[in-house]
Amino acid sequence: MIKQLLSKRNVYFDHNATTHIAAPVRSVMNRVLKSYWGNPSSGYAKGKMSAQIIEKAREQVAAAIGAHSHEVYFASCATESNNAILKTVSNHFSPEKNKVISTPIEHPSVMNTLEYMKTQGIDVQYCPVDKSGRVVLEEMEAMIDDKTSLVCCMLANNEIGTIQDVKKIAAMARAKGALVFSDCVQALGKIPIDVKDLDVDYATFSAHKLYGPKGIGAWYARISCPLEPYIHGGHQEEGMRAGTESIHNIAGFGEACKHVNKLVTFSRQNESLKHTFIKELKGIKNDIIINSPEEHCLTNTINLTFPGIGSGEMMKMLDYHGIAVSAGSACSTSSNKPSHVLKAIGLTDEAAQESIRISFGSTTKSKHIKYTLKVIKQYIEEEKNKN
Amino acid sequence: MIKQLLSKRNVYFDHNATTHIAAPVRSVMNRVLKSYWGNPSSGYAKGKMSAQIIEKAREQVAAAIGAHSHEVYFASCATESNNAILKTVSNHFSPEKNKVISTPIEHPSVMNTLEYMKTQGIDVQYCPVDKSGRVVLEEMEAMIDDKTSLVCCMLANNEIGTIQDVKKIAAMARAKGALVFSDCVQALGKIPIDVKDLDVDYATFSAHKLYGPKGIGAWYARISCPLEPYIHGGHQEEGMRAGTESIHNIAGFGEACKHVNKLVTFSRQNESLKHTFIKELKGIKNDIIINSPEEHCLTNTINLTFPGIGSGEMMKMLDYHGIAVSAGSACSTSSNKPSHVLKAIGLTDEAAQESIRISFGSTTKSKHIKYTLKVIKQYIEEEKNKN
Repeated sequence: MIKQLLSKRNVYFDHNATTHIAAPVRSVMNRVLKSYWGNPSSGYAKGKMSAQIIEKAREQVAAAIGAHSHEVYFASCATESNNAILKTVSNHFSPEKNKVISTPIEHPSVMNTLEYMKTQGIDVQYCPVDKSGRVVLEEMEAMIDDKTSLVCCMLANNEIGTIQDVKKIAAMARAKGALVFSDCVQALGKIPIDVKDLDVDYATFSAHKLYGPKGIGAWYARISCPLEPYIHGGHQEEGMRAGTESIHNIAGFGEACKHVNKLVTFSRQNESLKHTFIKELKGIKNDIIINSPEEHCLTNTINLTFPGIGSGEMMKMLDYHGIAVSAGSACSTSSNKPSHVLKAIGLTDEAAQESIRISFGSTTKSKHIKYTLKVIKQYIEEEKNKN
Repeated sequence: MIKQLLSKRNVYFDHNATTHIAAPVRSVMNRVLKSYWGNPSSGYAKGKMSAQIIEKAREQVAAAIGAHSHEVYFASCATESNNAILKTVSNHFSPEKNKVISTPIEHPSVMNTLEYMKTQGIDVQYCPVDKSGRVVLEEMEAMIDDKTSLVCCMLANNEIGTIQDVKKIAAMARAKGALVFSDCVQALGKIPIDVKDLDVDYATFSAHKLYGPKGIGAWYARISCPLEPYIHGGHQEEGMRAGTESIHNIAGFGEACKHVNKLVTFSRQNESLKHTFIKELKGIKNDIIINSPEEHCLTNTINLTFPGIGSGEMMKMLDYHGIAVSAGSACSTSSNKPSHVLKAIGLTDEAAQESIRISFGSTTKSKHIKYTLKVIKQYIEEEKNKN
């Protein structure tokens, strides 16, 4: 019966990895590609029109995150933005203030950058998280000292969905004279974001997690905070990010941000789907472990362990039935190591390698969930009969 | 009479700054944006399809430059690629081999990166160029020593069009055990390029100079040459460039590269237009000075000085009549300093600030040239009558 459905089914449950590009976003991008291709740095009319497109998008992104538009800088992706902020800010304060504090569950683009910074003499320390993935605030407070230049903590975790109390962490950092950086990539479009309310100094964002194009990110830098270029060259982005701007990608990012409130609403609607899914799943296999916390969690994200079933096997089986899920971050797919996030919240290597991430999105319907449950149920029963 | 023509005219003579996006390129991009948005790092079918799109484009870019596809790495632009190669290669050999030799007429993305590297302890030296902008080979040979890690010389200059003898420079470098890097951004699509024949170790390219999208570049790195990531994070691009790939931009770059031979042919056809333009211009104002060399020059590029007329004034006047030209690199527009390239070939500050760059492209027709000559002639006559 499942096989008969195969050709009809196309269930995408990996929205934390990336999203499709929304039709209005594509439409704006196509228009820009066709008509607004002048170099934004050029002084003639065609160049100025392109520059205007960029400034409009900057305002749209700024509005979505509660920033002033002159606090928003475009870069090629969030990974670049994370590299730029972490490396240049830590370098700015080094060697006097040489310590950077982060968490052990950051995205690979932060994690691997921090590990690189260690080789360059930066004292990087990781504050432990509890079983739900939340930063242990007392430990964080004890770790921040007057040698700390930067505290770096993501707003929402990409693998398990944990939402951190970044506002409280920012207050702790500020009390000790440290700056605060939050990777908000996975949060934007899923929960409301206001960088002023979070009280962070730097934050990063990516278009392709909210139905915008791949290849465009942005960082927020509070006015008067240290900022230095990471990519040198032309004067683009106030001299802070050289390189001819990807106007169509920037315009697409802006358009995606216009819909951010609607996306947050969709995300809230995912909550009941998530509860149904978890409840039904436990009915199918009662030893399933939910790694995503019940509280302070993205409503679209479910990380779960199927004891005895490797994540690779499970993903392959689901893919065969047209269902796309992942085993954690797409950015660490090729490593085949157990997830650093799952290990940090206490899973064994074995359990981490039996875990998958399901992340709903704006197009997720209960029929997708029903179908997926059916596929999983049949698989579990077949496996049971084999043994 | 000119004013009557205004609304009908749209003459783009700034192809060295950027080009429009060719229709087949847009078409490929639109298709990818709509249908191939899966994360290329994801293991399921949708992800694998995206990965295939990228590998196809890599082969197309490799074919256009005479490389193997596994020697081609995508990055967000040529500026990023230039930063990545210059900083990581010089760092790899420092402090044992601490010297980098370049030329005083490189693009700002190379020039400003080299100047930054100086602040980080790298010994950067510039080999003089002659009046035509060609590297003085004897001086270059004398400068390269066993402390030299890298020789960096662009293939074709963006402001005056000078084509360097990179092959000879590469041989000199190799004889002294130094590696060779060539910024080939302005050359690709205008002259045939074969990185194996040029015998360089590294080279960089950009899609938006050859009717591809903005926001995508690539570097070539010869197999077994040192290569380290500049942007840390995920395992993308064999671990050499982290960040989710801009699949549509990459596909657009690939498509643009498919047409590279045709573009080189167009460029050859520009040669007679260029000769006509220069000849007629000299008839209008006989003290006009052509800064682009007669030999070893891109056939689409004319840099010229109008003695007594500021470039800003000239550009503004032409823009008013729908003609887009520039005063050198778009990447240094906002600085208002006289061009470092024109100064390096011997122009005074005054002459440099009376110079404009005209760069033809695939859509340039003799009617555009006739109209532009008419506009310039009328302006010159009006100015003459005023004085």
